[in-house]
Amino acid sequence: MSDRPAPDPPARLTRWEQRTEVPLFAAGLLFLTGYAVRVLAPRDAEPWHDIALILVWSTWLLFLVDYATRLHLSGLGARFVPVRWLDTLVLLLPLLRPLRMVQVYLAVQRRRDRPRLNLYARVMAYAGLTAVLLGFAASLAVYHLERAAPGASIRTFGDSAWWACATLTTVGYGDAAPVTFWGRVVAAGLMAGGLALLGAVTGSFSSWLIQVFTREDEKRPPERD
Amino acid sequence: MSDRPAPDPPARLTRWEQRTEVPLFAAGLLFLTGYAVRVLAPRDAEPWHDIALILVWSTWLLFLVDYATRLHLSGLGARFVPVRWLDTLVLLLPLLRPLRMVQVYLAVQRRRDRPRLNLYARVMAYAGLTAVLLGFAASLAVYHLERAAPGASIRTFGDSAWWACATLTTVGYGDAAPVTFWGRVVAAGLMAGGLALLGAVTGSFSSWLIQVFTREDEKRPPERD
Amino acid sequence: MSDRPAPDPPARLTRWEQRTEVPLFAAGLLFLTGYAVRVLAPRDAEPWHDIALILVWSTWLLFLVDYATRLHLSGLGARFVPVRWLDTLVLLLPLLRPLRMVQVYLAVQRRRDRPRLNLYARVMAYAGLTAVLLGFAASLAVYHLERAAPGASIRTFGDSAWWACATLTTVGYGDAAPVTFWGRVVAAGLMAGGLALLGAVTGSFSSWLIQVFTREDEKRPPERD
Amino acid sequence: MSDRPAPDPPARLTRWEQRTEVPLFAAGLLFLTGYAVRVLAPRDAEPWHDIALILVWSTWLLFLVDYATRLHLSGLGARFVPVRWLDTLVLLLPLLRPLRMVQVYLAVQRRRDRPRLNLYARVMAYAGLTAVLLGFAASLAVYHLERAAPGASIRTFGDSAWWACATLTTVGYGDAAPVTFWGRVVAAGLMAGGLALLGAVTGSFSSWLIQVFTREDEKRPPERD
Repeated sequence: MSDRPAPDPPARLTRWEQRTEVPLFAAGLLFLTGYAVRVLAPRDAEPWHDIALILVWSTWLLFLVDYATRLHLSGLGARFVPVRWLDTLVLLLPLLRPLRMVQVYLAVQRRRDRPRLNLYARVMAYAGLTAVLLGFAASLAVYHLERAAPGASIRTFGDSAWWACATLTTVGYGDAAPVTFWGRVVAAGLMAGGLALLGAVTGSFSSWLIQVFTREDEKRPPERD
Repeated sequence: MSDRPAPDPPARLTRWEQRTEVPLFAAGLLFLTGYAVRVLAPRDAEPWHDIALILVWSTWLLFLVDYATRLHLSGLGARFVPVRWLDTLVLLLPLLRPLRMVQVYLAVQRRRDRPRLNLYARVMAYAGLTAVLLGFAASLAVYHLERAAPGASIRTFGDSAWWACATLTTVGYGDAAPVTFWGRVVAAGLMAGGLALLGAVTGSFSSWLIQVFTREDEKRPPERD
Repeated sequence: MSDRPAPDPPARLTRWEQRTEVPLFAAGLLFLTGYAVRVLAPRDAEPWHDIALILVWSTWLLFLVDYATRLHLSGLGARFVPVRWLDTLVLLLPLLRPLRMVQVYLAVQRRRDRPRLNLYARVMAYAGLTAVLLGFAASLAVYHLERAAPGASIRTFGDSAWWACATLTTVGYGDAAPVTFWGRVVAAGLMAGGLALLGAVTGSFSSWLIQVFTREDEKRPPERD
Repeated sequence: MSDRPAPDPPARLTRWEQRTEVPLFAAGLLFLTGYAVRVLAPRDAEPWHDIALILVWSTWLLFLVDYATRLHLSGLGARFVPVRWLDTLVLLLPLLRPLRMVQVYLAVQRRRDRPRLNLYARVMAYAGLTAVLLGFAASLAVYHLERAAPGASIRTFGDSAWWACATLTTVGYGDAAPVTFWGRVVAAGLMAGGLALLGAVTGSFSSWLIQVFTREDEKRPPERD
């Protein structure tokens, strides 16, 4: 976010990132699937739990290898960590991995030479998709942390998803809310991260609506009839 | 929302849309009335329930015929579905039909050659009216889905309308909240759709207030007294 | 809110409004005081209840006379009602009378030739003050309507003020919420009116903060040290 | 917030403020630490309670001396109080002292000649940091006021911090909420002050996101592929 734009990455790094885009997209999907299976599968579905665990750890290892390679190729040394802070955060909290998926989705769309969405629509798509993924990840994590807690109001994944909806939109009914320490930490993260994203969606929608009405004004000749 | 504006519709389609405007406005009112009667009438008001059901289905058939005709006249073929995505959504979820009513209302107002509202006022009118209709439709649907659920906190249509107010404004007291799966799905839709609209109203109001104060500055000569 | 600004009021109307400014300000204060006493005084404080009632009705009569005079002086006839819609609303719902007080306050401040506040500060002052008055009026009305209701969670004026704070800021804890029909109608009005005002305050504050930081950038010479 | 910028402070005042920056930063930290210890330490940790109390009062005395000196050096006399309203507020409500810390933090960062953050990032950093400090101070104060109240839902500092998160983001679950008069006054202050700050963060984030997407548009050559 500095005023001077980050230096252009070297060509090798760009090539690496273009080549690993599709495999990492698949790995991201596998990681999320693995975590979801581990959290949502019934406890006695024994083989699935182990498979999911292996999936989660092996994809995370893949992310680690990718991060290390990019750090090396960038030639930035330790400065890579703050400059690419989103990538770093995603490595440490792998449930935020889906955030990178959004970038990949946008890149794929760009490559297909689709008629490009306008500015507001892209901000809305980016922020909305990120908010949905963040909400899904938080639902999984909170359900994981809360389901066995005494006195919990979040007892099923449905409750957890409902709680995430009410939290992201700041409605906050309070019929379902985390009661454990770690559940509340995840919830605070969801509030902090998600509200800004939702704010961006709402702001873009409002700007877009004003743009639509302005354009309509310009199209119509001066009122006569 | 693409950068290139949608191609201008052919003259036949425009003519069709101008002619069907008033009948479809009446049909939209009938549909909403029919659904409201079906949901709100006491269970033993036998003839009314059946009449309302017939009304709902026959008006929906009308919407289907109108949609098919416009798809044919547009000459776009299957591209009609994404280009006119709002019309398509309205056909599939007929309770969102009121959204088209807003367009009709604006068209009627335009035809009467009233002194036009300024930009912010039109955005506020459009978004506010859409939000009210969305809230009313969601109130009906949630009351329909919740009233017989065990442990429901929404037991009367008054509760449901109160819940919709508190949800649309993101206040979310939690004294009334849906407990069934489908009630919560409708609620999530109301949050997602309604908040953006309310955000547009609030944003426009704020911009309009700043405009009013700026204009006042320009009117007054430099302070002397 | 039309594009063409409302026609300038005739000189007689302007003179009338300038002369009645201070007396009506006093009457507005008396009305609010009278209503507050009627609602907040203990039931057995007999003389005060009657005095407050007389105060409320006589000041309202004053407002009616003022409105009729201005309607006559404006030369607009029935068009006065929509053009001065805020004045009309204030006449019908006299508890919204405080809204005019804000205009008077701004006019008084203007006359004293104080160094004028900048645009954002004036929007914040106007919207913030209106929101506070709206919240106070709604607290009084809701306390009036709810205190005797069975199963009410708003039992004291303190509860009512606390509920108004939580509602205006959209926090909505739900520990206090109206349960009667009319209490909920007032609450819905407070949500609809107050949130837009609060949105204006927040939006102006955000714009002002950005302005402050921009100015600071311009003041400082290009970084050297 | 007046249109005419405040007159430049005299050189002596500027020198005083530059010299006292670091000691006052340390004093601010000590004050907050002292208050936190006094509130959070168990009741029987006798020596610590007294030490914390002495710390709190002696640092506040320091703030008072600093304020008086600056008032004297400014040559503004009584006009110092409204012109430097933030400093005055901070003196009267010493728990808001952290707000000055933010200015110091920004000044320190400036001195180090770091590559400066852009406008939105600085607004986000300033408002976000202020919101966090405000939330922390309010958590401490509310926990202090509520922990012994009968029927309180805030019983531990964890509850209080959780309540502050839910309040600042306007989620407002209502599972924890102040019940005492002074607790509610602090809560109303947190809502009023904190929401505007959070609004500034959200607004800046939204503007920054739009800027990022706009820049990306400019970088890419006109679509061809």
